[in-house]
Amino acid sequence: MSEKLTQQTVTDFLDALASNAPAPGGGSVAALSGALGAALVSMVCNLTLGKKKYAAVQDDIAALVAQSEALRHRLTDLLEADVEVYTGVSAAYKMARKTPEEKAARSAAIQEALKAAAQVPLDVAGACVEVLELCTQTAEQGNLNAVSDAGVAALMAEAGLRSAALNVIINVNAIKDEAFSAKLQGELDALLEGRSALKEQVYDLVVEKL
Amino acid sequence: MSEKLTQQTVTDFLDALASNAPAPGGGSVAALSGALGAALVSMVCNLTLGKKKYAAVQDDIAALVAQSEALRHRLTDLLEADVEVYTGVSAAYKMARKTPEEKAARSAAIQEALKAAAQVPLDVAGACVEVLELCTQTAEQGNLNAVSDAGVAALMAEAGLRSAALNVIINVNAIKDEAFSAKLQGELDALLEGRSALKEQVYDLVVEKL
Repeated sequence: MSEKLTQQTVTDFLDALASNAPAPGGGSVAALSGALGAALVSMVCNLTLGKKKYAAVQDDIAALVAQSEALRHRLTDLLEADVEVYTGVSAAYKMARKTPEEKAARSAAIQEALKAAAQVPLDVAGACVEVLELCTQTAEQGNLNAVSDAGVAALMAEAGLRSAALNVIINVNAIKDEAFSAKLQGELDALLEGRSALKEQVYDLVVEKL
Repeated sequence: MSEKLTQQTVTDFLDALASNAPAPGGGSVAALSGALGAALVSMVCNLTLGKKKYAAVQDDIAALVAQSEALRHRLTDLLEADVEVYTGVSAAYKMARKTPEEKAARSAAIQEALKAAAQVPLDVAGACVEVLELCTQTAEQGNLNAVSDAGVAALMAEAGLRSAALNVIINVNAIKDEAFSAKLQGELDALLEGRSALKEQVYDLVVEKL
């Protein structure tokens, strides 16, 4: 791919997604969903900074937006990384497999590519958790006129987390190194634990404040 | 806004979202989330069409992709419409309110703009439900190599629905015509009913198939 996905227009990105090209796919959408959540946290912060009514929380909000912007850029980079590692896995699968030596080399290359590929959705999941964990404070301290945006941020972060989880599980199932797989699954489980409930808490808090 | 949001690059859209400009905001993200879900349904279909292994379901998949593509384009249009109606509400709030006559005219204009604005997130919610309802079939009949994408589609459609719901509730709370508000709330409740459970069903089905 010559052009970065995030340099495509939204319409072209959706067209590429809908097409029969295997990438971009759900892995990229997971990262984008998290980035949309992070951007909405930033939006609420930016609508709060400099407002007299919110004078008491200016320092907190300045610290918050620094975190959400860092997460937004990390997730945008991961969107591109997801396509790159996917390309690596595809290339390994396309290796010659006529002789026993070729079969062994191909199998080893696939396993190595899968291990590298597994880290990206796990990183996406981790970053989405971090975005989600900013949302309660965003809803509590941010500009009340934008509180619904804190709720949407939580929904997008959690959907990004769950979407990334599906992409981690694909790798867990395909990697033959059982210790490596078990470690991945353990890290994923820790990221998922309690996060859907947290999203619902933020949602309920937002509905109360609307 | 001179440029359509969907003609911006993904990066520029995220920048605009994160900024202190009141639009785009969570309402646009709700529509985008649904459009991403619809695009992923289309992707799974396009990876299934023309494949011998899936010969038995070609007609079903052709019908499915027609629906998902129509929904994708409807949700993309609603993304733009959300910003337009938001602009209408903002303009009404900015009307003069010095004299009693001005106050009355402003109040009436706000109420009219809010009623027009309320329809957009309700339409987004409805379209997201339609996308979600395509996901079970997508996961059951679609190319097994892309089944995780059917799961991500369901997650994005449900997050879009819940995000749109927050934007409907804002309008329900601000509209003084109680019969109109009650009708909106009733339509929203019907759209939400059972949909989070359906999303979890699709997710579980996908995890089983991974």
